[in-house]
Amino acid sequence: MNGLWLENQQLQLRSDLPIPEPKPGEALIRVLRAGICNTDLELLRGYYPYTGVLGHEFVGVVERGPQPWVDRRVVGEINAACGTCGFCRRGISTHCENRTVLGIVNRNGAFAEYLTLPVANLHPVPDNVPTDVATFAEPLAAALEIQEQVNVEPNQRVLVVGDGKLGQLVAQTLALTGCNLLAVGRHEEKLENLAARGIQTGFAEAVDEGTFDIAVECTGNPSGFELARQALRSRGILVLKSTYAGKLTLDMSSLVVDEITLIGSRCGPFAPALELLAQERVDVRSLVDRHYQLLEGLAAFDRAQERGVLKVLLEMG
Amino acid sequence: MNGLWLENQQLQLRSDLPIPEPKPGEALIRVLRAGICNTDLELLRGYYPYTGVLGHEFVGVVERGPQPWVDRRVVGEINAACGTCGFCRRGISTHCENRTVLGIVNRNGAFAEYLTLPVANLHPVPDNVPTDVATFAEPLAAALEIQEQVNVEPNQRVLVVGDGKLGQLVAQTLALTGCNLLAVGRHEEKLENLAARGIQTGFAEAVDEGTFDIAVECTGNPSGFELARQALRSRGILVLKSTYAGKLTLDMSSLVVDEITLIGSRCGPFAPALELLAQERVDVRSLVDRHYQLLEGLAAFDRAQERGVLKVLLEMG
Repeated sequence: MNGLWLENQQLQLRSDLPIPEPKPGEALIRVLRAGICNTDLELLRGYYPYTGVLGHEFVGVVERGPQPWVDRRVVGEINAACGTCGFCRRGISTHCENRTVLGIVNRNGAFAEYLTLPVANLHPVPDNVPTDVATFAEPLAAALEIQEQVNVEPNQRVLVVGDGKLGQLVAQTLALTGCNLLAVGRHEEKLENLAARGIQTGFAEAVDEGTFDIAVECTGNPSGFELARQALRSRGILVLKSTYAGKLTLDMSSLVVDEITLIGSRCGPFAPALELLAQERVDVRSLVDRHYQLLEGLAAFDRAQERGVLKVLLEMG
Repeated sequence: MNGLWLENQQLQLRSDLPIPEPKPGEALIRVLRAGICNTDLELLRGYYPYTGVLGHEFVGVVERGPQPWVDRRVVGEINAACGTCGFCRRGISTHCENRTVLGIVNRNGAFAEYLTLPVANLHPVPDNVPTDVATFAEPLAAALEIQEQVNVEPNQRVLVVGDGKLGQLVAQTLALTGCNLLAVGRHEEKLENLAARGIQTGFAEAVDEGTFDIAVECTGNPSGFELARQALRSRGILVLKSTYAGKLTLDMSSLVVDEITLIGSRCGPFAPALELLAQERVDVRSLVDRHYQLLEGLAAFDRAQERGVLKVLLEMG
């Protein structure tokens, strides 16, 4: 089959990949659509050593596997867990000690014609959710992880730093809580997306220092982190939603004096993400930049790496 | 009156200080005993610009002030709050936006014959608690702040990094929760203090990476931070109990992937601290290194800055 293969930080379009063989409890899934995420771009830059098919945001159809999954249109959680380690036993399978992660750690990903995943990871896509839209289930779930970790109240002042793909999903999900939200970024046209949905937006200058209860960092760069940190009042919470290519230097004493909480936030719950998409409470269509065929995958990656580009989607035949 | 005055990172013994005049709602307190804290040493090193009398851990007797405080032996919370800002209205007066802080921010401290504090900050010392012991109310309250911020359960594995004054109080208070505790440090004789109370102790090598639910950093140095970080499992909580002289560089991506929480922790509740001292549930006597008279204050500071020295106490006449 065809697929985009990463090896030694080189992405290749290969046509000689074997169709994967599902293990017991796994499904063979024909991929319909897949999205390019910043994590894919960072893997390309060597953020983490990975060799294999890239891609972890997808919608597909189950071709083979246990019933009642066959022929269903599905999305899938990306962490394939062992089911027996301490984390799995506590129900925190996203942190399974023995996990493989679709297109990220020891498991071939979604930028190919087929992938395999445990059926325990699958969620059926509601009929009224188009395939393009459902491709956002994974990043939308990641945005919702914030609310699994932090209680967001309507009387709280919340800042989202970053108007990229993830920042937009984070801002939209936080807006649903009724909190007093400000989303800041660097791109007028992207901020307009959010403003059109009634979200207060601005550039960095719009942030009053020391006034926010919660700040969510979605840029992955040190200046974004600094802005989020400065925005917080004492006892504020800084949610880190982006990975950083390098290390970050910060003033720990001020974290102690102001009793700031920093929380790393990664994968989130798919069920509410799909529900929000089915109810059209979150708009993802405006986040789609362009579609490419899998065979144009390398061009798709070039496009995804251009400054200011939102979601690039791959279509599998 | 006599007092230890900090100015331009120089500590002087002065005899020309005026006895402070209590404002409405404040008490004039004759200081009996005061402890030298690492924060005092850091102020001396210029960690924060402060000019005035140093010192914030004390026991005194109210000489003048509203009833029923006169003649009472007291300890005092160090943050003098405005009572009207957003933090005060939410009951978080330790973060009052307009606060002065005894011996730290815009308020003369306890290394003098007299100090003033709002009576709202005072706590009577139970009769059965000796003055030396009560001097530990402030740092013990700071240790208890951890349990105000983090729920510590008996089935959790908890690490304390640092066997200094604060680390010892933190370890002792955490041990009371029944958690599975390990305290690590660099000084065999200090660790023996804790071992004698049934606390498991060791050097850095005793820490199994990725196995602790909670790690408390009490060293204020980067290697202590690194040890605490490495000790944590995914979704673990790192409590920062010490201020750091410089900035710290850290791998934010690993915080995101492992969904680590970092919490800065400062001043804590005095009432339970005094209760623990009254019940003798925490041993502080073994933490006293030596007593000095106020007039020997500079020698006391020299002693406090020696490597491995625990609590140095000042006696006021």
